[in-house]
Amino acid sequence: MTSHRGNVLIGQSGGPTAVINQSLVGLIETALGAPQVGRILGAVHGIRGVLEDRLIDLGKETRENLAAVASTPCAALRSVRKKPTRDECAAVLSALRRHAVRYFFYIGGNDSAETAHLLNELAVEEKYEIALFHVPKTIDNDLRENDHCPGYGSAARFVAQAFQGDEQDNRSLPGIKIDVVMGRHAGWLTAASVLARDHADSGPHLVYLPERDFDLDRFAADVERIHRQLGRCLVAVSEGIHGPGGKLLFEVAERDSHGNAQLSGSGALGDFLSTQIKKRLGDKLRVRADTFGYLQRSFPGAVSPVDAAEAREVGRFAMRTALEGKHAHGSIALQREGGAAYAPRYAVVELASVAKHTRPLDPQFLAGDEGVTEKFLDYVRPLVGPLPRMARLADHPV
Amino acid sequence: MTSHRGNVLIGQSGGPTAVINQSLVGLIETALGAPQVGRILGAVHGIRGVLEDRLIDLGKETRENLAAVASTPCAALRSVRKKPTRDECAAVLSALRRHAVRYFFYIGGNDSAETAHLLNELAVEEKYEIALFHVPKTIDNDLRENDHCPGYGSAARFVAQAFQGDEQDNRSLPGIKIDVVMGRHAGWLTAASVLARDHADSGPHLVYLPERDFDLDRFAADVERIHRQLGRCLVAVSEGIHGPGGKLLFEVAERDSHGNAQLSGSGALGDFLSTQIKKRLGDKLRVRADTFGYLQRSFPGAVSPVDAAEAREVGRFAMRTALEGKHAHGSIALQREGGAAYAPRYAVVELASVAKHTRPLDPQFLAGDEGVTEKFLDYVRPLVGPLPRMARLADHPV
Repeated sequence: MTSHRGNVLIGQSGGPTAVINQSLVGLIETALGAPQVGRILGAVHGIRGVLEDRLIDLGKETRENLAAVASTPCAALRSVRKKPTRDECAAVLSALRRHAVRYFFYIGGNDSAETAHLLNELAVEEKYEIALFHVPKTIDNDLRENDHCPGYGSAARFVAQAFQGDEQDNRSLPGIKIDVVMGRHAGWLTAASVLARDHADSGPHLVYLPERDFDLDRFAADVERIHRQLGRCLVAVSEGIHGPGGKLLFEVAERDSHGNAQLSGSGALGDFLSTQIKKRLGDKLRVRADTFGYLQRSFPGAVSPVDAAEAREVGRFAMRTALEGKHAHGSIALQREGGAAYAPRYAVVELASVAKHTRPLDPQFLAGDEGVTEKFLDYVRPLVGPLPRMARLADHPV
Repeated sequence: MTSHRGNVLIGQSGGPTAVINQSLVGLIETALGAPQVGRILGAVHGIRGVLEDRLIDLGKETRENLAAVASTPCAALRSVRKKPTRDECAAVLSALRRHAVRYFFYIGGNDSAETAHLLNELAVEEKYEIALFHVPKTIDNDLRENDHCPGYGSAARFVAQAFQGDEQDNRSLPGIKIDVVMGRHAGWLTAASVLARDHADSGPHLVYLPERDFDLDRFAADVERIHRQLGRCLVAVSEGIHGPGGKLLFEVAERDSHGNAQLSGSGALGDFLSTQIKKRLGDKLRVRADTFGYLQRSFPGAVSPVDAAEAREVGRFAMRTALEGKHAHGSIALQREGGAAYAPRYAVVELASVAKHTRPLDPQFLAGDEGVTEKFLDYVRPLVGPLPRMARLADHPV
């Protein structure tokens, strides 16, 4: 396929990240002035905006405002969680034709890649020549074909700092503290809590990930062991923990159109685990639970500079790839060069290979029943950037 | 009272803040080399450490480590929540005599001021000549005699940034979002959420404070009104909201020895409010709740520079005051100069006037049933410092 002159359309989809607008601005700034590009359009609320004809003209944004939008968390175009039916896909393509769109970019996670894939299959079927790309983002870090995903480094930075602070809090007022971290099917974000460990006795002392089956009795025994040893226990728990066969620990009320259960936006799992600990180990214990919630994906003050730069470059690379015309469609993948020093690499992969399914934490990063390996720390450190130093008093005896 | 040569003892008490160690280091660095000061001791876990003879020698800390400890959140000396009985007060004073302590500093909130007050009354009764000072800290900002409290500015900065991000999140994926903020009896911290408002339609759209009685039906009606108008609604709720006569909305299980109910470390209030909204407005609505939890007092990445500097100076001022010998005891108060430009002022007030009771949000800062005044924003802005700019796309029509 060679490149065609036409309009660009960009949409954002799925859960926000702190750097998803970097990719949006990377796309826009690369399209501005490109000879193949007519207008640069934005779909408000992703494909819902296309279906409802809520498009805006991104080409008229000032450079100054684009720079400010880039460093603002969450979807400036506004987002959507929607898996289109076949009829809706046809309606989306028909709207794209009507607006003379030759370049379509959908910034999102695996569900958004699935939407892009469905649209692309129909476009191919209809012989509608359109360059159709998925641009990755997800704090869950669970896109296949990627070493890591734009959005993850900043969320991991938030989680690491949250545990750095909560470790000091737990040491100040000892007790059992359970912190629930996002990540539906994959433990990448919860594992980043381990970056907070800086002393032999620092927490998180236990890390529970969806990659391993969770057992309440074993959990209580682990907590009791640490608590007996240190007089306190700081626990990192993924919101996605489950029993054998993926069974959730308790029933959830809501599912979205991709079939995902609502895990975030509630303190229910943390409170459930607190109650179970008190029931098993005694209700005189000081047990507390916090659920970090949406702050992990939206907090403006914990952005990883590496993550922000890579998210920007992913957008630029996607636009350059589309305009070059060597690929008619695909998903942009963020990979890692092999050398000793950290360096990212950008690639184009098949939509189908990223769509729908997710990537669990690599088995080489799992240690025992409730830990992660040193190798994981080597993996994650460059993505998160240097963390503030937490110092203790030397406790000189009197 | 003139000043005596003797040892210094410092303790930290109550809930941590992000800058409580600034005050600790301010005390230590001012005592180092002072001719009246023998050894500089620290009580591990406040008065519990005194009772259990867990003291450490702070005079042997390196300057380099003290500087690192100062910028580490939470109590480096470790904290305690304990109201001493009369017998325990006697035991504390006896331990202080044994260690030749002539200068005692207790860094904490109103409960810690009460402890200091009880100890001081007994010391006066026993004619034990000791300079005994309470050094203020609390994220709740509810100490009487103070314009604001060390620790508040940083917690308010965290809350303001959390709402800045969550406002973008709520705009990305619209729905009803409830964020529960710390602050047992006073709405100072919850009110700081309003700093996130930067457009006519930005959240938080509703702010519920413990200074006003909370009514579930009125709450649901408020949320419905905003949701009908904007298609979304972001709500700030204090953990301390209550019905008429201070009745909590549901029963809590735990109370500490000062009689305080456990409100933090659980997502129960947020989840309760979500459920009530769905029950009243329909269970198809997207309703989510986050409880910010201990991150508000411990997150290392959101410290207000003004707050950090003032917390340091409060410690220095306390030590200078004690060493000068003009006051035998008291509580250090952080006040504000009257001019147009913000400037702090440090004063000594009576222990009894700060102990036990708290200071609600000033009535001049309350607006209507669910808002705060512009005057409050003028009050809080200099304490929090400049916030990141959140930018929106201009939404140029196609």
